[in-house]
Amino acid sequence: MNVVSYRPKPEELAYTFGGRPAVARIQPGTIVEMYTEDCFAGRVTSVDDLPSRVCDFPYLNPVTGPFHVDGAEPGDTLALHLVCVEPARDWAVSTTFPHFGALTGTHTTAMLTPPLDEVVWLYDVDVAAGVVRYHARRSDFTAELPLDPMHGTVGVAPGASEARMTITPDAHGGNMDSPELRAGVTVYLGVNVSGGLFAIGDGHARQGHGEVCGTAVETAMNTVVAVELIKGVITPWPRMEDDAHLMSTGSARPLEDAYRISQHDLVTWAAYLTGLDVLDAYQLVSQIGEAPVGNVCDTNYTMVARLPKSVLGGPAVYESAHDRLRALGREYLAQR
Amino acid sequence: MNVVSYRPKPEELAYTFGGRPAVARIQPGTIVEMYTEDCFAGRVTSVDDLPSRVCDFPYLNPVTGPFHVDGAEPGDTLALHLVCVEPARDWAVSTTFPHFGALTGTHTTAMLTPPLDEVVWLYDVDVAAGVVRYHARRSDFTAELPLDPMHGTVGVAPGASEARMTITPDAHGGNMDSPELRAGVTVYLGVNVSGGLFAIGDGHARQGHGEVCGTAVETAMNTVVAVELIKGVITPWPRMEDDAHLMSTGSARPLEDAYRISQHDLVTWAAYLTGLDVLDAYQLVSQIGEAPVGNVCDTNYTMVARLPKSVLGGPAVYESAHDRLRALGREYLAQR
Amino acid sequence: MNVVSYRPKPEELAYTFGGRPAVARIQPGTIVEMYTEDCFAGRVTSVDDLPSRVCDFPYLNPVTGPFHVDGAEPGDTLALHLVCVEPARDWAVSTTFPHFGALTGTHTTAMLTPPLDEVVWLYDVDVAAGVVRYHARRSDFTAELPLDPMHGTVGVAPGASEARMTITPDAHGGNMDSPELRAGVTVYLGVNVSGGLFAIGDGHARQGHGEVCGTAVETAMNTVVAVELIKGVITPWPRMEDDAHLMSTGSARPLEDAYRISQHDLVTWAAYLTGLDVLDAYQLVSQIGEAPVGNVCDTNYTMVARLPKSVLGGPAVYESAHDRLRALGREYLAQR
Amino acid sequence: MNVVSYRPKPEELAYTFGGRPAVARIQPGTIVEMYTEDCFAGRVTSVDDLPSRVCDFPYLNPVTGPFHVDGAEPGDTLALHLVCVEPARDWAVSTTFPHFGALTGTHTTAMLTPPLDEVVWLYDVDVAAGVVRYHARRSDFTAELPLDPMHGTVGVAPGASEARMTITPDAHGGNMDSPELRAGVTVYLGVNVSGGLFAIGDGHARQGHGEVCGTAVETAMNTVVAVELIKGVITPWPRMEDDAHLMSTGSARPLEDAYRISQHDLVTWAAYLTGLDVLDAYQLVSQIGEAPVGNVCDTNYTMVARLPKSVLGGPAVYESAHDRLRALGREYLAQR
Repeated sequence: MNVVSYRPKPEELAYTFGGRPAVARIQPGTIVEMYTEDCFAGRVTSVDDLPSRVCDFPYLNPVTGPFHVDGAEPGDTLALHLVCVEPARDWAVSTTFPHFGALTGTHTTAMLTPPLDEVVWLYDVDVAAGVVRYHARRSDFTAELPLDPMHGTVGVAPGASEARMTITPDAHGGNMDSPELRAGVTVYLGVNVSGGLFAIGDGHARQGHGEVCGTAVETAMNTVVAVELIKGVITPWPRMEDDAHLMSTGSARPLEDAYRISQHDLVTWAAYLTGLDVLDAYQLVSQIGEAPVGNVCDTNYTMVARLPKSVLGGPAVYESAHDRLRALGREYLAQR
Repeated sequence: MNVVSYRPKPEELAYTFGGRPAVARIQPGTIVEMYTEDCFAGRVTSVDDLPSRVCDFPYLNPVTGPFHVDGAEPGDTLALHLVCVEPARDWAVSTTFPHFGALTGTHTTAMLTPPLDEVVWLYDVDVAAGVVRYHARRSDFTAELPLDPMHGTVGVAPGASEARMTITPDAHGGNMDSPELRAGVTVYLGVNVSGGLFAIGDGHARQGHGEVCGTAVETAMNTVVAVELIKGVITPWPRMEDDAHLMSTGSARPLEDAYRISQHDLVTWAAYLTGLDVLDAYQLVSQIGEAPVGNVCDTNYTMVARLPKSVLGGPAVYESAHDRLRALGREYLAQR
Repeated sequence: MNVVSYRPKPEELAYTFGGRPAVARIQPGTIVEMYTEDCFAGRVTSVDDLPSRVCDFPYLNPVTGPFHVDGAEPGDTLALHLVCVEPARDWAVSTTFPHFGALTGTHTTAMLTPPLDEVVWLYDVDVAAGVVRYHARRSDFTAELPLDPMHGTVGVAPGASEARMTITPDAHGGNMDSPELRAGVTVYLGVNVSGGLFAIGDGHARQGHGEVCGTAVETAMNTVVAVELIKGVITPWPRMEDDAHLMSTGSARPLEDAYRISQHDLVTWAAYLTGLDVLDAYQLVSQIGEAPVGNVCDTNYTMVARLPKSVLGGPAVYESAHDRLRALGREYLAQR
Repeated sequence: MNVVSYRPKPEELAYTFGGRPAVARIQPGTIVEMYTEDCFAGRVTSVDDLPSRVCDFPYLNPVTGPFHVDGAEPGDTLALHLVCVEPARDWAVSTTFPHFGALTGTHTTAMLTPPLDEVVWLYDVDVAAGVVRYHARRSDFTAELPLDPMHGTVGVAPGASEARMTITPDAHGGNMDSPELRAGVTVYLGVNVSGGLFAIGDGHARQGHGEVCGTAVETAMNTVVAVELIKGVITPWPRMEDDAHLMSTGSARPLEDAYRISQHDLVTWAAYLTGLDVLDAYQLVSQIGEAPVGNVCDTNYTMVARLPKSVLGGPAVYESAHDRLRALGREYLAQR
């Protein structure tokens, strides 16, 4: 088993997809162990650390990478299987942030009203108990919420010689903030540049649908990824697969366009996999498809379109990459 | 137990919320048994019945009602508990419809491209097996999908002397097309006119999230509703409650505004129920709230914001109307 | 010349399109002299009259009418020519209004931020000088702006048995808030119910594009309208014509859909009038069409698509109704 | 007078803002003479040159530059005065383009409908007569439209280490496609990187509002720009000034957010320039502001907010850079 470990120093964190050299070259079939910092670059450590004071824009939402996958060329697809996503700390933070979030004016949805108060919440992350513990700031109210670790940000270098802030989700992936990005899922990303140059960050101990206040339960992660390269297969928008579902994503504004992209991709993908006529696939997805919301707060909004594989008769997807990567991941975990 | 039965003749079906006299007056505490026609007014009965030929716009999406609830006045809330929602036929239909649906130009998202083909799919509804059976039109592909009966359309007369097509969801309810509107849920609707004037229709044997092609698995329903009146409590947008969750809805365009309305209502409602500061509630909903999509095809789009009651400590909601109506529904079912 | 005069008593003002009986029946070819109240129903008369205190929702944006045009049936078009629009007072008001306007959270673009301050501005309306005079509230700054009287709200009863608040613009017209609705323009409205039932209100001494703060320079008007009926011609969305331009409108959200509707209508209308292929018309409109913004603050947003008639070779439009009505209006003015 | 001339070879054309070295260094106060290619990189030369065949995505919308302005640092503002914008050819082209334009499904507003036909229109550009001549493709119809040369694309390197396709408008400028970008206007762009790195392209012999079909009357240009640097003044979004107006821009989706950004910037800028209270400025802009539409077809949509300078009392703007650059441009033209 080919295992590569990488823990970035603070100055090695990346703040764009594209525009940066790889931190490592890996072969397809490799397991990558990595450490990811939280979206505040670890600078918010108490309720007194207001992000607008301790963070320097645009040094937000760092990712670990990028990793160059040998042989990856435009027109191929990278398969990244999240073997495990484990909180690296026993605490996490979440905040409001001036002009960010779904229920406040932003730099885009520009308003003359003043921003909401900037407040920090500190969570306990209790991996053993499988919970995160919420503490209200203005009363004694507390609540235990299920731990459900995931990555907000997974992506590759974009095409067209672009470099994009890691906070932006688009066709190259990026900050999709979908709770589906948890251990056990395989992410498929279309390759735009030689090596693909994938990177991962923005760990969440858990998040709600849409990340309405703008941030999730943000924490550092120890994450393990199994990587495959699928040659000659184009992936127009990030897709995901878990044991039971196929998923397409779309990231755009307005939110209905994110919905349209994701549903369009799922419909045409289902038609391709099954030989169904496109309108027949449209009908089928209409009745059994789900649409879990990713984010409704970033520079683009994200929606996921999800379909049970069983309803399609369990087609072979991406040359069965998910099954192989799942097996590889189990083997890795068994040896660890 | 006070039980009222009502089965509309075709000419008694309603096509607006508001602007119509009540078909019956009921007391709070009543059980209403009703029959609802499908969204095509029952005119599409085979794959050869193209809706653009057999239906007359605007006679689409009929509802059964409206029902006048004695004592209901503006500023009150109606609680409608769906005791059962049972398909009244062993078949159902779904269609594409010219200039309707999320992945085609519409009269609003106006395009110069021609419409998609108009196609009808006929489903078997097998209540005993708990499935609906999909048959592709352009191949032999079939699939069994879980039966999950629900109503696309539940609402009251709007305020401001308006009358609205039943196809439109807004603050008065209407065609929200949320799969949450299944048996076991209590819907809370703010009263805008004397008697409230609620009506129900658009039964779906099941639907996916967003009703992407524009129609669900459409069928007639035998539906039983238990009704309560909560005096002096305002409900700004339709809310729902089941045994485990509180839900707020929003219907608007663009879709992010439907999201904003529903999340804003859920956050402020949670703060009200728990005494939490609004920003504390915003944070809590951000991490544990769900956002199941209703429709992304109607004249307004609908999103639902959902929160486990447990995380709020199980507060008493609407004077515990859901618990009482649930008990009344069980009593009714036991006697039937 | 057939002239009808109508001045509504306060209790005769209408607050919906549809759902109301006509205040008068008129023949095609009639001149209607009417008085319209301002959008506050005349209740805001000083800077101390905050609308949230002196107005009762939903009694906002009253219109004068509706007028029944003899012979008008669904499938016909009403042509309303604005002969003159004259301020009925030497003052006007404008205000911010809680949760209304483009740069604040609203009931639809729901925000947790508090609303902007509610402020009233009192304008001098100096018809002789052709200006309105702005006075800042929090300094001594003043400015003279050109007088340009217009009506924010012109419409007919909607179809599908609907009744809509006058504040909403849609396919039936309504609160489009386009500065094009000034004297000299002919408005074409598709008839949805017998008699058409047109009504007019919401006079503005002038307004900017989009009515960004939510209200214009609001005042009562003495308005004269010349009316024609065009039998057997359908008008899908309100259109306008002045001596030099054809105009289509669209009202929807998001704003790009209002743009799409208006441009789609203008392209297909231009193709119809000239015999051009639709793509040829699309190309032509793309290069010479204008898109003056109506409102970006109401329940639907409005855009206008405008084309010089000269570029189409001066086609006969609606059986040359504009030319006839313009002549009739001049005759009326000469006799007055 | 310091004059720099630059005519890029085909391989020197730039396809991103950011991510590229400067083609020349210039001093503030310099006049730059440049040649710009059309948005097809000059490859569409007849009605048989379909862009999808002769162009290679992403090599669309080339710009000339970038130019490094000595002394420009983040926090400063570049003032670019368009001295002249002159068609470099006596012909121009416009096209539909699959999945591009406002009245067709796109990669973002994803639809299952097939794209519109791809068609090329060839225009005569008659500078002497001051017209462009349109020829219908599917009939003999022709029309003369006023020549009104402008640049669709003007921008600087974005911040946050981003590189963006030239087709995208955002806070750094880019493909705003506003007809205001004609000779006589001064564009103000906030500097994000050392040298600012401005570039210009996408000449249009004229365009309508919104560029509804996706392309304007596209041609190469000989353009002259006078450049100043304003130290220590931040410009959040591109602004423009001509002899009579101040203009702010916003580029975003949905279109109402582009409107909000541009109006918000104009309101706060007007308040800053005059000392008016922000709500007083909001009111004033509401009544006298215009909102000319830029594009409703690119990856972000663009709106402009325009205000007569006279209404503000003719304040000194950006240290009167426009007046100085206008004088410099006249001096250059007199000497040419």
